[in-house]
Amino acid sequence: MTGASPRVRALWAQMTLDEKLGQLVGFWVDQGDEVVAPMAGEMATATTYADATVHGLGHLTRVYGTRPVDPVERAAWLWGEQRRLKTETRLGIPALVHEECLTGLAAWTAATFPTPLAWGAAFDPDLVEEMGRAIGGSMRELGIHQGLAPVLDVVRDPRWGRVDECIGEDPYLVGTVGSAYVSGLQSTGVHATLKHFVGYSASQAGRNHAPVHAGPREIADVFLPPFEMAIRDGGARSVMNSYAEIDGEPVGATPRYLEGILRDQWGFDGVVVSDYFSVAFLHTMHAVAADLGAAAELALRAGIDVELPTGDAFLAPLAEGVRSGRIDEALVDRAVLRVLAQKEQLGLLDETFAEPPTSVDLDTPAHRDIARRLAEESVVLLANDGTLPVTGPRRVAVIGPNAAASEPLMGCYSFVNHVLAHHPGTPLGIEIPTVLDALRLEFAGAEITAATGCDVEGADRTGFAEAERIAREADVAIVVVGDRAGLFGRGTVGEGNDRESLDLPGLQRELVEALVATGTPVVAVLLTGRPYAIDWAFDGDRRPAAVLQAFFPGEAGGEAIAAVLSGRVNPSGHLPVSLPRSAGAQPFSYLHPILGGDSEITSADSSPTLPFGHGLGYTTFERRDLRIPDEAPAGASFSAAVTVRNTGAVAGTELVQLYARDLFASVTRPVAQLVGYQRVDLAPGEEVRVVFEVPTTRLAFSDASMRRIVEPGDVELWVGPSCAEKEATALLRVVGDVHEVAPADARLVVARIDRASVSV
Amino acid sequence: MTGASPRVRALWAQMTLDEKLGQLVGFWVDQGDEVVAPMAGEMATATTYADATVHGLGHLTRVYGTRPVDPVERAAWLWGEQRRLKTETRLGIPALVHEECLTGLAAWTAATFPTPLAWGAAFDPDLVEEMGRAIGGSMRELGIHQGLAPVLDVVRDPRWGRVDECIGEDPYLVGTVGSAYVSGLQSTGVHATLKHFVGYSASQAGRNHAPVHAGPREIADVFLPPFEMAIRDGGARSVMNSYAEIDGEPVGATPRYLEGILRDQWGFDGVVVSDYFSVAFLHTMHAVAADLGAAAELALRAGIDVELPTGDAFLAPLAEGVRSGRIDEALVDRAVLRVLAQKEQLGLLDETFAEPPTSVDLDTPAHRDIARRLAEESVVLLANDGTLPVTGPRRVAVIGPNAAASEPLMGCYSFVNHVLAHHPGTPLGIEIPTVLDALRLEFAGAEITAATGCDVEGADRTGFAEAERIAREADVAIVVVGDRAGLFGRGTVGEGNDRESLDLPGLQRELVEALVATGTPVVAVLLTGRPYAIDWAFDGDRRPAAVLQAFFPGEAGGEAIAAVLSGRVNPSGHLPVSLPRSAGAQPFSYLHPILGGDSEITSADSSPTLPFGHGLGYTTFERRDLRIPDEAPAGASFSAAVTVRNTGAVAGTELVQLYARDLFASVTRPVAQLVGYQRVDLAPGEEVRVVFEVPTTRLAFSDASMRRIVEPGDVELWVGPSCAEKEATALLRVVGDVHEVAPADARLVVARIDRASVSV
Repeated sequence: MTGASPRVRALWAQMTLDEKLGQLVGFWVDQGDEVVAPMAGEMATATTYADATVHGLGHLTRVYGTRPVDPVERAAWLWGEQRRLKTETRLGIPALVHEECLTGLAAWTAATFPTPLAWGAAFDPDLVEEMGRAIGGSMRELGIHQGLAPVLDVVRDPRWGRVDECIGEDPYLVGTVGSAYVSGLQSTGVHATLKHFVGYSASQAGRNHAPVHAGPREIADVFLPPFEMAIRDGGARSVMNSYAEIDGEPVGATPRYLEGILRDQWGFDGVVVSDYFSVAFLHTMHAVAADLGAAAELALRAGIDVELPTGDAFLAPLAEGVRSGRIDEALVDRAVLRVLAQKEQLGLLDETFAEPPTSVDLDTPAHRDIARRLAEESVVLLANDGTLPVTGPRRVAVIGPNAAASEPLMGCYSFVNHVLAHHPGTPLGIEIPTVLDALRLEFAGAEITAATGCDVEGADRTGFAEAERIAREADVAIVVVGDRAGLFGRGTVGEGNDRESLDLPGLQRELVEALVATGTPVVAVLLTGRPYAIDWAFDGDRRPAAVLQAFFPGEAGGEAIAAVLSGRVNPSGHLPVSLPRSAGAQPFSYLHPILGGDSEITSADSSPTLPFGHGLGYTTFERRDLRIPDEAPAGASFSAAVTVRNTGAVAGTELVQLYARDLFASVTRPVAQLVGYQRVDLAPGEEVRVVFEVPTTRLAFSDASMRRIVEPGDVELWVGPSCAEKEATALLRVVGDVHEVAPADARLVVARIDRASVSV
Repeated sequence: MTGASPRVRALWAQMTLDEKLGQLVGFWVDQGDEVVAPMAGEMATATTYADATVHGLGHLTRVYGTRPVDPVERAAWLWGEQRRLKTETRLGIPALVHEECLTGLAAWTAATFPTPLAWGAAFDPDLVEEMGRAIGGSMRELGIHQGLAPVLDVVRDPRWGRVDECIGEDPYLVGTVGSAYVSGLQSTGVHATLKHFVGYSASQAGRNHAPVHAGPREIADVFLPPFEMAIRDGGARSVMNSYAEIDGEPVGATPRYLEGILRDQWGFDGVVVSDYFSVAFLHTMHAVAADLGAAAELALRAGIDVELPTGDAFLAPLAEGVRSGRIDEALVDRAVLRVLAQKEQLGLLDETFAEPPTSVDLDTPAHRDIARRLAEESVVLLANDGTLPVTGPRRVAVIGPNAAASEPLMGCYSFVNHVLAHHPGTPLGIEIPTVLDALRLEFAGAEITAATGCDVEGADRTGFAEAERIAREADVAIVVVGDRAGLFGRGTVGEGNDRESLDLPGLQRELVEALVATGTPVVAVLLTGRPYAIDWAFDGDRRPAAVLQAFFPGEAGGEAIAAVLSGRVNPSGHLPVSLPRSAGAQPFSYLHPILGGDSEITSADSSPTLPFGHGLGYTTFERRDLRIPDEAPAGASFSAAVTVRNTGAVAGTELVQLYARDLFASVTRPVAQLVGYQRVDLAPGEEVRVVFEVPTTRLAFSDASMRRIVEPGDVELWVGPSCAEKEATALLRVVGDVHEVAPADARLVVARIDRASVSV
């Protein structure tokens, strides 16, 4: 209870048990006071909205995100509700309003930005921070205080459907980009929520909610760093527990994570909210609580302060437990004080809710500009035989299930997909320019023909003939394939859409191969929420002339793709995840120790189809003269300078990737680890020196006794076009004593671009 | 050093450093004093045999197992060598001779028994103990003191090639059957070696030697129990470390496992031998040691006493480290005293080696009888539309790459496959009756035709036409498909043969389906070293009429399969591993908590194609009236009685399977767990009461503070034809205080068959 202000303590001191519990729960009310039940069957909230707010309410859950309703109209309702809570409840505490905002605010007419895999591919934290700021601005306008983003789960297995919501497979990339999102969002006064703390992405076989098989070192060295960075560097104010159980212990029932690591070790003093229904899942799924009251106690004790989306466990069952003396009210008080402190910090205790907004623009030109730039930076050119860029085509065939539709530009946590998850069949009234729309503008002088070919899923090949015909008659065929994001069983990727196979869904591979067989150069564009196993697209007779991986690029994604195809934008995205060999080769991460294959030790090839960091452009780069000091004291920092030169004929942006390998250590270490990265714009022929200032703490790991240390010894460093190619190398000797890394130690690598030695 | 006898201490006190180190290593010498280098390229032993034995030698590595040479001839060489060590080395200590013996002694002309998956399928520890005794007897005759078996790794992922060497996916099954092997082998005075301690089978994506992602609870509750049982119940005298690294720590470098758990917790006082080359791998692969000397120190400190197969790290590098003062000689002494104590215990210090054997029979009628009975009990009938048993056929077509060959009856650790791994192309001079041979005898009155159809691997379908033709002309077609076991890249399963796909290798599925299409009833017989994803064989148009899973049934496997096909033997094997859905659904174990699929939580179906414990026969059984007490005190035992009745027309053997589910616990628990099992022979119409006496410690698990406890609460118990079918159920309330399970607590479940109420 330390840290609570006198005002908060005074408020708390007046509260009845019911008033306290009211502050620890959300309520999910839809238009017309109907309760939203997204996991129907899993959970059924008995309480009515009126009953739930009699004693005040902690959170209003998703006021905007599940219906296409005019935000101004909805804001008017919200302002009225807040005034009602202020005047009609005894203590007059407004509700904290939270909303989803991963790829933009989940509200009708709000901007839809690229998904996190695209942020990862852009390797551009500054731009992601801009995006966060734009999203936060819209939220502020609508009276929303907390956004349920970003997702900081480190990708470990692309079979998992929620990879769609993740930034990448490198903890440092996730941490830097995720922290930038947090900084941007929170600069507007809106609280970010880090999710899902922790370990969620390593579930068995990529199945959502399945057990996580991981030891404490993997948790500490792979899964926790992004959260630590976003709290220490990004100042994140809220955290959401993961649904996961790790080695038999559900995170939401385990104080070691939510109290021990988060608060005791890192000093986090914000609020922990439960992932939706996860308190109840302690009873119904993990079976570590014999009833909802026991689940509530476990969750509270573990460090969950607020139950979302509604108070299934934290209202009646918890009240009964406390009243009967089984549950210590001090657990409730701890959480209440945190919630009140958050409301005080947000200014909620003083708000009057006098004037709701009378008009809002949630998709301003500034929003659209950010969405476009981020989309452009995120497109990854995987392969190109010279067909790209397509210049001055006469006839362009645009084919594929994702070519002429808006939905495939959006991730599973977009407003659109959330509405469809909660209210299937709702007319959306939203139009986002498709790839086809954008290509008609981009190639205004060309004759554009279009065909679907096949659906994303299913076995109907009746559209093949028409697609092949228009391809045959064109100079170039652009085939846009991939995923349809969705939730809870709708779609091919997204929450609940886990896959046993990493083949492209449906007949899409066959469609691409059939088009290649026409002899017309084919450019495959992948709009996907996970990396797929597409080795066939790079090798063999039926490979396309070029392959673009665009993940879900958002509302300006069509335009960005068209610009890359025409060469107006030189692609600069790089893979934030390895392109997998197959589902049967999972789990996989580039952060692996020596794997031994393909050799006598294992016949299984351990290489992915394309490595983390891979990405081509329309120019070429040379990296040379990596210079580092011979020695660096453990606990200090060192500089690593490398010369990068644009050796091609057009301007382009190089992603300078600095990797390290600790050659011998007291525990096993990865054969490659991203240490720092920096985007650099270079004119043709231009060369610069890029200087990374690297704290040796970037090489830290958990030793045999689980201390985080930097160990003396030799470290190989290199710069190259991906994690797998060592174009410029150097050897660093870390010297001195073992350095125990304090939580306050810097982890950020600063890069400086030295253009003094420009030689165009 | 406590525990060493005065004689051992006196011997040790005289030893020079070189003499000590000599006792800590093996030497692998082939005929002609040539050094065997199975992992050529990984390791190259510089020492000659003469040099290696100057100061005495700890182990002679694999004297018999890598060449087809007359065992008597080889024994003569060995006896001579032992005499030479006694007379020509200063201290006159003979070498301990170790050999592989997993599926029988790895020596020319020795019996080849079924592989461990077949032991698991038989669910018959007594018969496995008989087999162990037979194997040990042969070893004794040949002067072998230690056998490198059994493998107690619990199956977690069938992609791993070494699943071929494992007993099953249930720790209790592995522990009971593995302990029986140990008891049998050691009853002859030969020491068993438990391998691979610990965690090896959970390597990432089933890739051999890849990192193991597991926390301490999974290690304690899944991987350790079989080892604990084989040490406490089986009295195993030696343990081999696993190659694995668990959560960043190679087991061979981690004192917590080999000293802490094994010796301090369990009181093991035998010898720990290194898996071949694993000490060097600490340097070359795990990279936790900067050179071989550092690797030697790590391994010694961790608790590895003897380096096998040769002394790459424990000879020169260790000597240099000790002499330079970097490595504490006390570490060497600890290991030496253990090795000398083992040699004393084996009687080696007193042996004279006066008379080598002049004739041996390593495959006596008694051996063959055991091999046959175990093979018969291990065949699992997966599906049958009534085609089986095949009675009085006129024309039988016997088809498939595994029908007319001996090799597919043998696992990767058979003598044959070891010879081929170490000396490819060696003529073997071994003939084991094939399935085709056996069918010619079994169906002596029938016309037998045969064709290969296709190879196990490859894409050559030229043999399909002939196979289809003979199938079409037969009354029944028996198609024998599956694996070819091998090591180090030879074969489709076995050490080093890991797979990304769990489809049957090559064209074998197509072959089976083509034969089914002929309209002749097809019986598919699978000789495999792992369970494959063969859902197509049970569902759809091209499914065979019946499917037999035989794993690798050994030298009498052909006869056993023929006997099952004809009905002379009623099949009684049950799946010791789940039959997987696909490689993309791995890892998987039936010991999982609620997985949530197929639902909104995950679209991925969590059910296997066929569950653990499944197995049909030619009769049917009913299980009813499961009776248990309402309550049992935690820490006591309870009886569970069930009535089993043969409801069919022929005699048969039922495997009574007792499962439990802890409904709510303080950590997540599996939805099903095998608690006890018992084979029961029943005449048609006969019924018996089977009474299990179950200590509640069978329900023990590691709690939040990693204490092994039995917790009060409700436990559902059931008996059924597999883990997935609850035919007779009952609810047990475990009462009283939490019971902390001491290492000495019984874990064995005793079953009694009460035939008093026989009612034929």
